[in-house]
Amino acid sequence: MRSNNFMAAVLQLAIESNDKIKNLDKTELAIRQAVEKGAELIVLQELHATQYFCQQENTECFDMAEPLDGYTYTRCAALAEELDIVIVMSQFERRAAGLYHNTAQVIDGAEGRVGIFRKMHIPDDPGFYEKFYFTPGDADGPLAGFKPVQTRFGKLGVLVCWDQWYPEAARLMALAGADMLIYPTAIGWNPDDEAAEQERQRDAWVTIQRAHAIANGVPVLVANRAGFEASPMAGESGIEFWGTSFIAGPQGEFWVLADAESEGIYCADINVQRSEQVRRVWPYFRDRRVDAYAGLTKRWLGDIES
Amino acid sequence: MRSNNFMAAVLQLAIESNDKIKNLDKTELAIRQAVEKGAELIVLQELHATQYFCQQENTECFDMAEPLDGYTYTRCAALAEELDIVIVMSQFERRAAGLYHNTAQVIDGAEGRVGIFRKMHIPDDPGFYEKFYFTPGDADGPLAGFKPVQTRFGKLGVLVCWDQWYPEAARLMALAGADMLIYPTAIGWNPDDEAAEQERQRDAWVTIQRAHAIANGVPVLVANRAGFEASPMAGESGIEFWGTSFIAGPQGEFWVLADAESEGIYCADINVQRSEQVRRVWPYFRDRRVDAYAGLTKRWLGDIES
Repeated sequence: MRSNNFMAAVLQLAIESNDKIKNLDKTELAIRQAVEKGAELIVLQELHATQYFCQQENTECFDMAEPLDGYTYTRCAALAEELDIVIVMSQFERRAAGLYHNTAQVIDGAEGRVGIFRKMHIPDDPGFYEKFYFTPGDADGPLAGFKPVQTRFGKLGVLVCWDQWYPEAARLMALAGADMLIYPTAIGWNPDDEAAEQERQRDAWVTIQRAHAIANGVPVLVANRAGFEASPMAGESGIEFWGTSFIAGPQGEFWVLADAESEGIYCADINVQRSEQVRRVWPYFRDRRVDAYAGLTKRWLGDIES
Repeated sequence: MRSNNFMAAVLQLAIESNDKIKNLDKTELAIRQAVEKGAELIVLQELHATQYFCQQENTECFDMAEPLDGYTYTRCAALAEELDIVIVMSQFERRAAGLYHNTAQVIDGAEGRVGIFRKMHIPDDPGFYEKFYFTPGDADGPLAGFKPVQTRFGKLGVLVCWDQWYPEAARLMALAGADMLIYPTAIGWNPDDEAAEQERQRDAWVTIQRAHAIANGVPVLVANRAGFEASPMAGESGIEFWGTSFIAGPQGEFWVLADAESEGIYCADINVQRSEQVRRVWPYFRDRRVDAYAGLTKRWLGDIES
């Protein structure tokens, strides 16, 4: 891991169609602009090659999936090699017939793929029918799916969207040595919800991810898509993706914060020494009650008589 | 548990001396004022009977400890019975010679004590020498120390101060059926720190507790002391307790929020139906990967080869 600081960028783009070539062209342009600004680690949004197809349950959408070495990876890997940068990309992965995942890949320059993360927590609610498409990531291996990816910038604790609501996921990545947490995301509002409810949702989403930074003493990088995508379902309202991509430091302090609407490239210098200092002042890892945490592996404890 | 709403109050008082009678008189007055406002559940600050003695390591300070049925409990229990309210109080507990805890007690009207919680995570940093005084709470029993207390207002997930930095503690209380999380607290600034660092610390503290509300879909009630307390140690700067007591709803939204300096009684109506609705919209409990969380009981996973 480099001991000096580096610049990271989170991309916040709207996706106007399911034309992967066009979408990757747009993403490539943004990546090149980010590199011009000095960024060397670039985080793309969740499922950035297409629109958010999970607004419906439609077997034809599985045609959008790709193997790990598919078109989206190939485009990103070529760019990472040419520009000598680290890219965290996201894709709809076809692992086998009838077995698909929501997968992030980490590409480190000419090394190509250095690791992947398959989304562990899969949501399902109206407009976000992800359980139809994505098998949750395997809990195999000694780290049970929560394995950070070693890169030139340290270990990246890559998680995906719905994982961001789970303190367990953030903690497991941190315990496994993640130097930062990274969330490719596609989340937005139901345009029919009232403004106060929309604001509560967005604020909660920012707050809980800042809290992962605080609880674990690591930076958090979040890339969310922007823009409106209509629903293919009659009578449905579509999703207004709420942007608000950000990078926070290990005390949860904003290093950069996007607004809800703008497309853009949001950069911040990652101070890799800061986590060391923050964890000395706030030594939460010292005091965890590992003797008392077994209940965390249970579904519910409220029915225990005690 | 009552199905209707009720009003809760968090107290934010300065403690001017170690005169317990005076301090309990002041607390009693505030409790009576809270009840006049309509509050039926009242949360006191951590160790409210005295000043924050952990600024030094001094064996004489153990004289301030009391058994569970000591003076502080007796005063609070009399008041809870007279006013027919629920009080969450906090004390320095002497359990045996050489065995002391930082303990919260829950008193429900004429029933008296209905449960206790002994602080599970004990801090220790300059000015907060708690490991000298407090044995961490036992991990005994089927809930391993994280046992909510049943009251007329549902199950109270009472935790204490440093516990507030641990998502594990909040989650375990919620899994055990806590209807809300409650944090008696005594936290403040080192007056020598620069303003930006002070603000980062206070903001982080608010943020992580709001995140416990969000992750678990329950209200969070936080009572912190206010005011400056000098250090008895030569050359030390003392602690400026940062107040900022608050009550947040299950999306982390503020229902009431105090400032950093004012003493006061901060009340909010607790909407007990709201958690049910929020957990339907944000069903995090549905999707927890209990098959993949075993690592949470480990101290560190970063040295695992995988």
